[in-house]
Amino acid sequence: MGEIKTIGVLTSGGDSPGMNAAIRAVVRTSLYHNLNVVGVMRGYEGLIAGELVPMNRKSVSNIIGRGGTILKTTRSAAFRTPEGRMAAFENIQKFKIDALVVIGGEGTFTGANVFSQEYGLPVLGLPGTIDNDLIGTDYTIGYDTAINNVISAVDKIRDTAESHARVFIIEVMGRDSGLIALRSGIGSGAEAILIPESETDIEELFRRLEESRTYKSSRIIMVAEGRHAGGLEVSEKIKERFPKYDVRLSILGHIQRGGSPTCMDRVLASRLGVAAVDALLAGHKGEMVGVVNNAIHFTPFHNAIKHISEINPNLLRIVDILSL
Amino acid sequence: MGEIKTIGVLTSGGDSPGMNAAIRAVVRTSLYHNLNVVGVMRGYEGLIAGELVPMNRKSVSNIIGRGGTILKTTRSAAFRTPEGRMAAFENIQKFKIDALVVIGGEGTFTGANVFSQEYGLPVLGLPGTIDNDLIGTDYTIGYDTAINNVISAVDKIRDTAESHARVFIIEVMGRDSGLIALRSGIGSGAEAILIPESETDIEELFRRLEESRTYKSSRIIMVAEGRHAGGLEVSEKIKERFPKYDVRLSILGHIQRGGSPTCMDRVLASRLGVAAVDALLAGHKGEMVGVVNNAIHFTPFHNAIKHISEINPNLLRIVDILSL
Amino acid sequence: MGEIKTIGVLTSGGDSPGMNAAIRAVVRTSLYHNLNVVGVMRGYEGLIAGELVPMNRKSVSNIIGRGGTILKTTRSAAFRTPEGRMAAFENIQKFKIDALVVIGGEGTFTGANVFSQEYGLPVLGLPGTIDNDLIGTDYTIGYDTAINNVISAVDKIRDTAESHARVFIIEVMGRDSGLIALRSGIGSGAEAILIPESETDIEELFRRLEESRTYKSSRIIMVAEGRHAGGLEVSEKIKERFPKYDVRLSILGHIQRGGSPTCMDRVLASRLGVAAVDALLAGHKGEMVGVVNNAIHFTPFHNAIKHISEINPNLLRIVDILSL
Amino acid sequence: MGEIKTIGVLTSGGDSPGMNAAIRAVVRTSLYHNLNVVGVMRGYEGLIAGELVPMNRKSVSNIIGRGGTILKTTRSAAFRTPEGRMAAFENIQKFKIDALVVIGGEGTFTGANVFSQEYGLPVLGLPGTIDNDLIGTDYTIGYDTAINNVISAVDKIRDTAESHARVFIIEVMGRDSGLIALRSGIGSGAEAILIPESETDIEELFRRLEESRTYKSSRIIMVAEGRHAGGLEVSEKIKERFPKYDVRLSILGHIQRGGSPTCMDRVLASRLGVAAVDALLAGHKGEMVGVVNNAIHFTPFHNAIKHISEINPNLLRIVDILSL
Repeated sequence: MGEIKTIGVLTSGGDSPGMNAAIRAVVRTSLYHNLNVVGVMRGYEGLIAGELVPMNRKSVSNIIGRGGTILKTTRSAAFRTPEGRMAAFENIQKFKIDALVVIGGEGTFTGANVFSQEYGLPVLGLPGTIDNDLIGTDYTIGYDTAINNVISAVDKIRDTAESHARVFIIEVMGRDSGLIALRSGIGSGAEAILIPESETDIEELFRRLEESRTYKSSRIIMVAEGRHAGGLEVSEKIKERFPKYDVRLSILGHIQRGGSPTCMDRVLASRLGVAAVDALLAGHKGEMVGVVNNAIHFTPFHNAIKHISEINPNLLRIVDILSL
Repeated sequence: MGEIKTIGVLTSGGDSPGMNAAIRAVVRTSLYHNLNVVGVMRGYEGLIAGELVPMNRKSVSNIIGRGGTILKTTRSAAFRTPEGRMAAFENIQKFKIDALVVIGGEGTFTGANVFSQEYGLPVLGLPGTIDNDLIGTDYTIGYDTAINNVISAVDKIRDTAESHARVFIIEVMGRDSGLIALRSGIGSGAEAILIPESETDIEELFRRLEESRTYKSSRIIMVAEGRHAGGLEVSEKIKERFPKYDVRLSILGHIQRGGSPTCMDRVLASRLGVAAVDALLAGHKGEMVGVVNNAIHFTPFHNAIKHISEINPNLLRIVDILSL
Repeated sequence: MGEIKTIGVLTSGGDSPGMNAAIRAVVRTSLYHNLNVVGVMRGYEGLIAGELVPMNRKSVSNIIGRGGTILKTTRSAAFRTPEGRMAAFENIQKFKIDALVVIGGEGTFTGANVFSQEYGLPVLGLPGTIDNDLIGTDYTIGYDTAINNVISAVDKIRDTAESHARVFIIEVMGRDSGLIALRSGIGSGAEAILIPESETDIEELFRRLEESRTYKSSRIIMVAEGRHAGGLEVSEKIKERFPKYDVRLSILGHIQRGGSPTCMDRVLASRLGVAAVDALLAGHKGEMVGVVNNAIHFTPFHNAIKHISEINPNLLRIVDILSL
Repeated sequence: MGEIKTIGVLTSGGDSPGMNAAIRAVVRTSLYHNLNVVGVMRGYEGLIAGELVPMNRKSVSNIIGRGGTILKTTRSAAFRTPEGRMAAFENIQKFKIDALVVIGGEGTFTGANVFSQEYGLPVLGLPGTIDNDLIGTDYTIGYDTAINNVISAVDKIRDTAESHARVFIIEVMGRDSGLIALRSGIGSGAEAILIPESETDIEELFRRLEESRTYKSSRIIMVAEGRHAGGLEVSEKIKERFPKYDVRLSILGHIQRGGSPTCMDRVLASRLGVAAVDALLAGHKGEMVGVVNNAIHFTPFHNAIKHISEINPNLLRIVDILSL
């Protein structure tokens, strides 16, 4: 392809707080470079269906602080088929889009990679997922907001737990990854954290519960949903072992991914959105734009995959020490 | 009994935000009148077990903004037995308590009523429950915070719902009462509200969902937990009827009752706590102290029961109109 | 005028949280009654300038939780002139508006009253102001959010005050009225509250500060801006009298009137918006629609004025007792 | 000195959110290593005055989420004198303290450095300041909470600014550093950011204001307090140049440093607190413990000073682009 005159932008996969800040940055940076910008509604589904809208300065006014994504998002089955991608490319041509920025997670990048290779369209990706589980970036857009949503919920539950001397099992998001559970667990002073990446012996958990009973009036156990059967299983086991404990289960669910993004997520999204447009103009393509050690970092799409085993052992040790 | 020199205070039943503000008001007003104050830990359980602690100005410093209750709370089975109440009264005598303020709900007042009649101790009650379901007060301590917790959670869920064009079923607290669902439903712009007090035809709900599908990108259905089988049942029925809808269930659970109390709950608790001590000195006993039409109002304990049928029909009509 | 087919709605004066919820209710209730609705931008200024836009269901989607007003607001000097009002009425005719709902405070209603009498247009007003200072309603739209904004700010300041053993003077809004200072002062556990309506002897304040020094590590003095020279004056006097105290002044300013409205403000605004349209259709005009003792209440515009002297003496006594 | 058996901990200088999480981590990690821990009240002042208290598990229960510092803090003039430090060391000996952890900023470390060299006591420092201006750590404890406090305040002000089409000047903390202004300015979508480190031409600001007038309904100018005369000066100049603009000044003040710490600040404080005790046992002394590129990093006290010139030029460019 030749010179870039028009950039398209879409969000795909699960929504994450900060996606709007990223869209805003892509739009404003494009305008700054005197490019046209087209917003694609509903991710790859909308690209296939032709739901594209030209964007201007006003389109992204006052969205930096809003959760969700004004472009909407879906998971698209059709885009996994050659027919779907062909229809998508027809709309790319119809709207004269010369390069694309996609905001999402591993699935989004996989689709982008295939599409970009089939049709030669320059595509860059921004990591928009609350799970923080992508290789190639220290933080994903939405993670910081999600863990703050969790600690804010657990702070509330702690009030009740303390008042009633209860054991609370809190299930947080993370199908393959315990990163949300780990950070938010440390942040909320959880007495134990159970994650898929680290096999905590349930007997060890029992031992700690028994021991801390004498000097703790409440206990919070943080469980990642992807850890075996999640919070329910842990809750049942504790009830069985300690029938006298007042055990409660709270599944935080969707409140984790909503809400106004934190400053860190807004700044990260802004930086990455600016960098993506700059990089497209500089010839980058087929890469995810992330931040590593506070510097912009590019990772080829096929490497920007989920990593599920690299839990910092220091953080696990911190949990052990601080939950004393 | 003769002159009141020492006042006891306890919290009982489910905790509610604002209980600490009420405790603070009882303690400070007692000190203002040069009385002694004794805090009873863990409600009637602690009264039976002798867990009583003298309180001073410092005991209640900086608690006005904290959720839960520094005195802890339980539901006591022992207090329902004559033996339990006898043990409790022995501690009343041991600590020279001349009058008692109990903060809780219907069950708390029932216990207080029996105890007060058996032993002639002056007892007044403050309505501390998030359910707002007591006759004799326009608002209970904790209700305003609870409904604000709900709308704050639903605002977050709305971000996700909008981004994905989903139907969200939100189950909120209220075993016998839809008051939390009703107010927070109006406050969060819910498309429908299902409560125990009003039999919404499920077919009518289906009709509205179908109709609004054309012009609403997301729909929020608020369900009180006490409405049949709660949110799960509603969720299953919608999925069955509209298999193409992206339907999600979120059970808000314990985050509803925690957190720093709102200004309204802090002021209400402060007013009621002051009024309770003033009233004990003026000879009141066996009553709940509430607020009706912005004035302090006393209701005999046996009348301060749950009312489950008085839903304001205007509010239901407002839901119908505004969810258009 | 004859049958009402089209309703206009505008916001005027200072913005207040919940105005959007009121606009939404006016729009949706009008549509419910199969009426047309026209939004007037920038209050009376926009009415004069012809900035009117037809509104539909989508116009008010997802605004219930947003601060400010989507219709914008101004204070209009031109509307105080006969020429201004004549230009305004020409636009009323041009857009075939049969009745008008104005959301604002005393100034807004004064303008509405004159306009309505000059041109015979039915106009109803909704109390949209954070000051809660209007006769004819127990609460104004925005007041509850404002006092919660204040206590949330003071809770933060208390952290610092406690850590450093400081005396903090907090100036809050209220040019003629101490209602914000009074409620938020009780809610934040202020040690003293200085308001225009009640002449607190400065020597009495000094006495309390001196006395509480021995058992309080921090002190918060809440001052309404309309009390003499506001917080600065109080701050200077305390510094002069107690040069060793670490005294700080914080003027909260505009953060008080922004932010997502509380549940109470959203419900109040929804109820009043529905009631206003219902009432116009029932023939009401020239009145403010408020809530008194939890029921809808109509007050002729010329009575819906600021009341500056009716401070509940019980609340002042509560401050004295609880700040012990 | 020989084996470490007792560790002292204190907070000094301005309080910052997360200090409590750091204290908790120091205490729990000491107990984990079977050491004694002594809390020093009111920083170096308390060390001189002998205000030391033994700490146990309970001392730090449920403080991870609280702003301020339970140990209180001061700026101590006496500790800058040899007599003051001698008195302090006498208390160190009296309480058998073998090593000390001090939490604060540059001034705190300067004092620690002198004291440690004079008396041979091992001392480590943790960066507790909202300003994020210390060499040797990517983030200081409290910075993330402070910038989130700012964006939350500005989000509220934006509601009002939009409703009235105003220009708002927001003055934020940062006497020597624009780091708070810069990040929070990007995060709140400020139209311009004025900081001490970068001389923005006031004429350039005027030009941007004039240009954006046509397509922006509100403008937010973020000013660091240390930039010339701060927000007031900027505000006056804009009013003078554009007399028709509705210009408002808001000085955020102390709300910036209070409130419950963010997850990031709690995790950072926890990591650093654990690392400090581990490091003391491993023989470290005379250093600040920070985090660089997500790994624990030690910096000698004399290097852990304020750095005032290293503003990331990319961030300034981002402001220019995104404020378009």
